[in-house]
Amino acid sequence: MSILKVNMTQREVVSEPFPNDKIVGGRAMIDYLLTEYGIPSAHPLAPESIFVAAPGLLAGSGAPQSGRISFGGKSPLTGGIKEANAGGTAGHKLGRLGIRAIMVEGKADEWHILKIDSSGAKLEPAGDIVGMKNYPACDKLRERYGEKIAIIIIGPAGEMRMANSTVAVTDPEDRPARHAGRGGVGAMMGAKGLKAIVIDSNGTSVRKAVDGEAFKAAAKKAAEAIQNGPLTEIMHTLGTNVCIDADGDRGSLPSYNHRHGAFEKRKGLCSNTMIELNNARGGSMGNSCMPGCLVKCSPIFHDADGNHVTSALEYETVAMLGANLGIDDLDAVARMDRQCDELGLDTIETGCAIGILNDAGIFEFGDAAKAEAYIEEMGKGTPMGRILGSGVTGTAHMFGIDRIPAVKGQGIPAHSARSLKGWAVTYATSPQGADHTAGVVEDDPLSPVGQVERSRKQQIATAAMDATGLCMFTFIDGQPELIAPMIAALYGVEWAAADFEELGKEMLRQERAFNIKAGIGPEADGLPDWMRKEPLPPTDAVFDVPQEELQQLFNF
Amino acid sequence: MSILKVNMTQREVVSEPFPNDKIVGGRAMIDYLLTEYGIPSAHPLAPESIFVAAPGLLAGSGAPQSGRISFGGKSPLTGGIKEANAGGTAGHKLGRLGIRAIMVEGKADEWHILKIDSSGAKLEPAGDIVGMKNYPACDKLRERYGEKIAIIIIGPAGEMRMANSTVAVTDPEDRPARHAGRGGVGAMMGAKGLKAIVIDSNGTSVRKAVDGEAFKAAAKKAAEAIQNGPLTEIMHTLGTNVCIDADGDRGSLPSYNHRHGAFEKRKGLCSNTMIELNNARGGSMGNSCMPGCLVKCSPIFHDADGNHVTSALEYETVAMLGANLGIDDLDAVARMDRQCDELGLDTIETGCAIGILNDAGIFEFGDAAKAEAYIEEMGKGTPMGRILGSGVTGTAHMFGIDRIPAVKGQGIPAHSARSLKGWAVTYATSPQGADHTAGVVEDDPLSPVGQVERSRKQQIATAAMDATGLCMFTFIDGQPELIAPMIAALYGVEWAAADFEELGKEMLRQERAFNIKAGIGPEADGLPDWMRKEPLPPTDAVFDVPQEELQQLFNF
Repeated sequence: MSILKVNMTQREVVSEPFPNDKIVGGRAMIDYLLTEYGIPSAHPLAPESIFVAAPGLLAGSGAPQSGRISFGGKSPLTGGIKEANAGGTAGHKLGRLGIRAIMVEGKADEWHILKIDSSGAKLEPAGDIVGMKNYPACDKLRERYGEKIAIIIIGPAGEMRMANSTVAVTDPEDRPARHAGRGGVGAMMGAKGLKAIVIDSNGTSVRKAVDGEAFKAAAKKAAEAIQNGPLTEIMHTLGTNVCIDADGDRGSLPSYNHRHGAFEKRKGLCSNTMIELNNARGGSMGNSCMPGCLVKCSPIFHDADGNHVTSALEYETVAMLGANLGIDDLDAVARMDRQCDELGLDTIETGCAIGILNDAGIFEFGDAAKAEAYIEEMGKGTPMGRILGSGVTGTAHMFGIDRIPAVKGQGIPAHSARSLKGWAVTYATSPQGADHTAGVVEDDPLSPVGQVERSRKQQIATAAMDATGLCMFTFIDGQPELIAPMIAALYGVEWAAADFEELGKEMLRQERAFNIKAGIGPEADGLPDWMRKEPLPPTDAVFDVPQEELQQLFNF
Repeated sequence: MSILKVNMTQREVVSEPFPNDKIVGGRAMIDYLLTEYGIPSAHPLAPESIFVAAPGLLAGSGAPQSGRISFGGKSPLTGGIKEANAGGTAGHKLGRLGIRAIMVEGKADEWHILKIDSSGAKLEPAGDIVGMKNYPACDKLRERYGEKIAIIIIGPAGEMRMANSTVAVTDPEDRPARHAGRGGVGAMMGAKGLKAIVIDSNGTSVRKAVDGEAFKAAAKKAAEAIQNGPLTEIMHTLGTNVCIDADGDRGSLPSYNHRHGAFEKRKGLCSNTMIELNNARGGSMGNSCMPGCLVKCSPIFHDADGNHVTSALEYETVAMLGANLGIDDLDAVARMDRQCDELGLDTIETGCAIGILNDAGIFEFGDAAKAEAYIEEMGKGTPMGRILGSGVTGTAHMFGIDRIPAVKGQGIPAHSARSLKGWAVTYATSPQGADHTAGVVEDDPLSPVGQVERSRKQQIATAAMDATGLCMFTFIDGQPELIAPMIAALYGVEWAAADFEELGKEMLRQERAFNIKAGIGPEADGLPDWMRKEPLPPTDAVFDVPQEELQQLFNF
């Protein structure tokens, strides 16, 4: 298999073989390439900075729900290393094409598309899709390149190099609804002058395992475990949005700019409401974000006239654009989600950023029309739009606001930190900034005791999971005994559960080392000071895991 | 003598005695108080962060040109420790009142004034000066408190907590034209709810030295040295603006957004032009910024009708709002300087910020009307005004620009880094960010050799100078043998040249320690990467002092 090295300045694409026995993929590939080729002192958007797209280790194989793809580089949002991943159809197609990563450097003065198929890869002028929103741009690209392609694309936000911009990946229904949302990966891609990557895997077949029999057995065992997994049924029927009630009940649903943990109007946003509306309007729960998915947790949401509004209306989006803005109108939230998908904006960061405008005295909670108008401004790149497009920390900086719900510049997501102290340790310490997918910890949520240890364990396991291309709902605690045999058989190497754990550790070490070289010291680990003082109703919890303990997290 | 501790939340002012033999003042007092009471992890604008005003060690004494006053805290611009100082009449008055520092903590919900006179200090409602520009606000305050007061005040920019906001001090003509410009000290004061400090020293007299005879002799010797100093005559007749030609000649005059080092239209901006206009219009060169000044370097600038436009039209202002924006119209630059003084904006940061809008494609070099309009927007706090009000790094972030002329978030000033490699080492390494007053190095400007050593020496000497309240034009290399005897005699302590040097070292150590605790690691030392690659015409110099050498600067 190979790595595509794309030099945008020279308009050159070179395919280099990549050692089969180097077991890095997805987030681990980003960590590896940033460690080898990244320049920690460079500006994230400088030509010298690299942008990486990398499917997981199991991409293109028959392993269940293993098609996630990672994007990353040096983040314009955090100033440190960043990875964000998404489902969609691109990961598997790249795996089938034998591509383990795309590493992009330099900068083209005009917008380009990277076209990849079984005959090779080349850069082409982006043409009329420049400046277009994601849905119509993808329609155009299918007209140009055929129906059976996967598309990786940035919207106007990424073109404007906004720190709150995403990379979108088309889903099984060909919609650009799967977003690598966090850390401004869209701006990283935009800074290269790369508008889209078009992947046509026609003529390829499922990746062959070196040890076919062992792989088949391991994949079957994993699939059975997933189907019997504790989350599968609930995610399939209620979607991730089940957390509106689950987090609301335990006081960890961010509401009113992170000032409350149980939105009193959450009935309007919850899964049951979504299901009722879907049943009445022809929307649906339980859709796959990628081929081979067994959990199928994603909703497709229609409006009152029965027309498609948005896909992947997930909990984080509903919480941050709904409850956190005091909005209980699911239709408005769905429209905002669609606009964020169109423009290439992270819904978490957007919800945090608009939320603090309440502190600035210019946004009233519950004003959905104004929130929608702000998102439109982001798409137009007005000064106000650029402020919001910089994310919550940039917005706070512009308005002189000191109560900022962010860690390392990245907005705190929708599993509220103060009432979920273990998860909060992950936000506080992850080299990725406040990231809800960097290490889920739900045990004993109101106690500060033992949370550093729990978070450490989960951050290591999650990092390794992010290397595989497996969805985090596959095995929420890692389950290396199920994963490692698939990788060992696919690559034909000795690779066991202990290697899985060591991979996770090595990734975190590399990420932390990059950050330190980029000027982000260990002292940057921590939640904002105000979260240690301001109680969050209804639990009235403050964050009280001692700072000294946080500094122990990376002792492994 | 004493320290005033002001708690804005409680509306309390307490006067605490301060040990006479603790030889800290000005910038050293800020370093000391931040080390003792500062919270490096707190947001710069949080109630927990402290704001400090501290006159120099010689304040209120008869020492020549020793009335500078320092302001500081944790900077909203750099995220680290920050001190900025200014002339004016406040420093000496505080010294005469026996006040060695004012330390402000907490936050008042309504704007207040701190009124200080020989009977004590108290907080009063700010009343109708809230929202006013600095000149009219000072007029109002004199109506309210009498003519013979010194005023320390923030403008609308500081009220809006802009990271590019200053603290103004009234000058001997009672104009708020002396600004502690850098690092957003205005926002620090604004974050407390403190609009102004009014100082009435009526009924006090010059501070008595413990050893009067020795002090008199030492002060006389210092005064003679100043009068015979190498800079005195030239600064008095040509002003700091002499650098328009001096820096232009050596290729270190930032022009066109730091893309050229010798503005070809600089004749319109130079000292001779200023002198001609002054002679014709009734303006003047050679004014004092504070009582007791012997150098008298400041211009007062009038318009074509003979009306006062601005005071203190200094080189950094003329270069950054003129040459760096491609503007050669001194009248326009003077109007912009006045507006910056009115609003409380740093002219260096403002010139850097507007300059990069050329890279954003929305500002054409030479468009003075647009530059003036942008400054007005900053005063109004429009979204565009808030972007510019955040300084050059914030502005770049909003527009996705990666070529940023800044170190640690602070804009690079008007002695251009690439053609002045020693001075550039100061910009690269000072805990204060890119600061032209943190350690002047002019020797062998195009060679990288020996610059770290030169900068180290000057940074130590300058830090100690910043503790004394002496103007940097007093003794550009420190001259502790002239300064130490004045301090020893004034305070009645053993204090020699070696103590002066040790004070400077201790200050830098404290500043660096604070920054590290605030998450700014040693890796943040350095010029932006692009300055190592992009040659600056006409010298075509790049910055090439090795990064490893920069890391040696603090080895003392």
